[in-house]
Amino acid sequence: MYNDRLLKSLAQQPVDRTPVWIMRQAGRYLPEYRKTRSKVKEFMDVCTNPSLALEVTMQPLARFPLDAAILFSDILTIPDAMGCGLYFEDGIGPKFRFPIQTRTAIDSLELPDPAALNYVSEAIELVCAELSNKIPLIGFSGSPWTLATYMIEGGTSKDHKKVRSFVYQDPEALEVLLEKLSIAVTDALNQQIRAGIQVVQIFDSWAGLLCPHLFKRLSLKYLRRIISGLELSPLGDRIPVIIFARGAGESLEELADIGGDCLGIDWSMDLGRCKKRVLGKVALQGNMDPLALNGTVECIQSEVKRICSLFKGQPGHIFNLGHGIEPDIDPDKVSVMIEAVERESRKILSFGQGQ
Amino acid sequence: MYNDRLLKSLAQQPVDRTPVWIMRQAGRYLPEYRKTRSKVKEFMDVCTNPSLALEVTMQPLARFPLDAAILFSDILTIPDAMGCGLYFEDGIGPKFRFPIQTRTAIDSLELPDPAALNYVSEAIELVCAELSNKIPLIGFSGSPWTLATYMIEGGTSKDHKKVRSFVYQDPEALEVLLEKLSIAVTDALNQQIRAGIQVVQIFDSWAGLLCPHLFKRLSLKYLRRIISGLELSPLGDRIPVIIFARGAGESLEELADIGGDCLGIDWSMDLGRCKKRVLGKVALQGNMDPLALNGTVECIQSEVKRICSLFKGQPGHIFNLGHGIEPDIDPDKVSVMIEAVERESRKILSFGQGQ
Repeated sequence: MYNDRLLKSLAQQPVDRTPVWIMRQAGRYLPEYRKTRSKVKEFMDVCTNPSLALEVTMQPLARFPLDAAILFSDILTIPDAMGCGLYFEDGIGPKFRFPIQTRTAIDSLELPDPAALNYVSEAIELVCAELSNKIPLIGFSGSPWTLATYMIEGGTSKDHKKVRSFVYQDPEALEVLLEKLSIAVTDALNQQIRAGIQVVQIFDSWAGLLCPHLFKRLSLKYLRRIISGLELSPLGDRIPVIIFARGAGESLEELADIGGDCLGIDWSMDLGRCKKRVLGKVALQGNMDPLALNGTVECIQSEVKRICSLFKGQPGHIFNLGHGIEPDIDPDKVSVMIEAVERESRKILSFGQGQ
Repeated sequence: MYNDRLLKSLAQQPVDRTPVWIMRQAGRYLPEYRKTRSKVKEFMDVCTNPSLALEVTMQPLARFPLDAAILFSDILTIPDAMGCGLYFEDGIGPKFRFPIQTRTAIDSLELPDPAALNYVSEAIELVCAELSNKIPLIGFSGSPWTLATYMIEGGTSKDHKKVRSFVYQDPEALEVLLEKLSIAVTDALNQQIRAGIQVVQIFDSWAGLLCPHLFKRLSLKYLRRIISGLELSPLGDRIPVIIFARGAGESLEELADIGGDCLGIDWSMDLGRCKKRVLGKVALQGNMDPLALNGTVECIQSEVKRICSLFKGQPGHIFNLGHGIEPDIDPDKVSVMIEAVERESRKILSFGQGQ
């Protein structure tokens, strides 16, 4: 690996500067993405076409000196492969033709045929060939709980009342669903590992819907199981795992204890406090407010400085936003942020060479 | 005061059982509320008509053995009195005819004429007469930050992108707005105190939109100022203050240090951990997941037991939901919850008599 800053930081080893990548770095805020997207009818047509997925995955890397690529795909590919009938409604978001809202639907749900996700493996192989080990490629999945929220709600939701009520109406049925999803997620991630990804990120985007004691029962337990079920890479290396459990700040200590290498921290959290709570057990990724990118240049620089300074002389930080980048952000503001990360982190990290 | 459980718990004194009230306890989940509401055209017609506000405030008390009344009103009465033109769109929520989206609009914004909120004082006087000190009456306001979110967004919002961007685009202008709102909120709460309320709750419902360091700058600072500006009651008593800053769990220690008596805890928080962090400095209120009321009877009872048990032998807990009650909850489930609070808390509190 030419640029191993991400891998070193995940292992909490010294680097020359803090690595940076951006959740949803390939996507709508880039005009070149919108151009590619306009060639096809549906959003999923980009994901399921390996050469388009490659094209889009590479776009942000051509613009910015990012320290990782992340496969362009969607967390809902797994429920889609389980027959839920994923589609995207313009201006609304993901929807399922066949939501899972009863015990009967849960019981008859089948694990995906691995062949149904071959397009993901093919895209990974193309991206790896193109990257030729210059920077690592991150593969990902949604967590069982987060996938379940979409499957039960039938798509995106404002208040998530259906799944939040389900938790208290039939937690046992929910556990059956989560059990199936854990197997599906483990299998899908292993398929990605075999295809060549070097890092895994698991998105538990809706962790914050659960009270902490139910987060442990309905999400953490399955995250742990997935991590312990991951295979080594084809070269025999352990694949580091980043867990991004948005809104689960109360459970950081527990999250740091399930075998992952790094916790993604959302922007509602005080990163300095998170550091005191779990740095050492795990690396930390984050956590600039994505809306700060709508701010002035001075404001972006000052936020970057504030965040980088928290890790003065301490390895184990990966710079990222505290949630995915918004579609209306000006790409020039992203450059401002990345340049500031480079400048500020070189100042505070006086370790050896990361590259 | 015949039933002083709430006041005693706010002062962290022993009680015979944990006091309980419910955020939005007078409202749409009650058929009798929907009947009153149907008599008038607009939601605000209930708030601005003191005899209807009285009627609605008393409705939950006739059904449930609650330990406090809370005035039926809305946090947006203050921006409305500042000329923002509040109205409610069916199925959507509050909207403002004149949102505040520029520095010019902020500069020309005037403090409300106290007479514009006389309907609130009149309603309080009617409720106090009706309650005749059997239970305390809670008055309330939104926090400056939370009011500003509605004023800048122009109403309720899914993503709050306007105000979240404003924070990074022109924080100084925002501070001018927050300054004005602090004065308006202090004046409005003092008007409520003079009319007879015995407890204040300040709702910072959108505290969670801010990173912790900006929460301190753009919300906490103004909350502190408001609390220190509150008058004594007409009888010369200090009025206890509850602060409900939803999503500001990272800042509990700081929130416990601004002169309030109690922190409302949202359902994303681990109440046992909150207790360790700040109980003693302040009392704690909360924090059952409002959606648990859609669960089975056993599930509601087990949640209540779990929460009450955290305060075994320790005064300073007020039972409440971790957010307002949802409009589609079955009132019988509320009875299940309240009966469980009474039963479970009598078991664990072995203090003197609270009533």
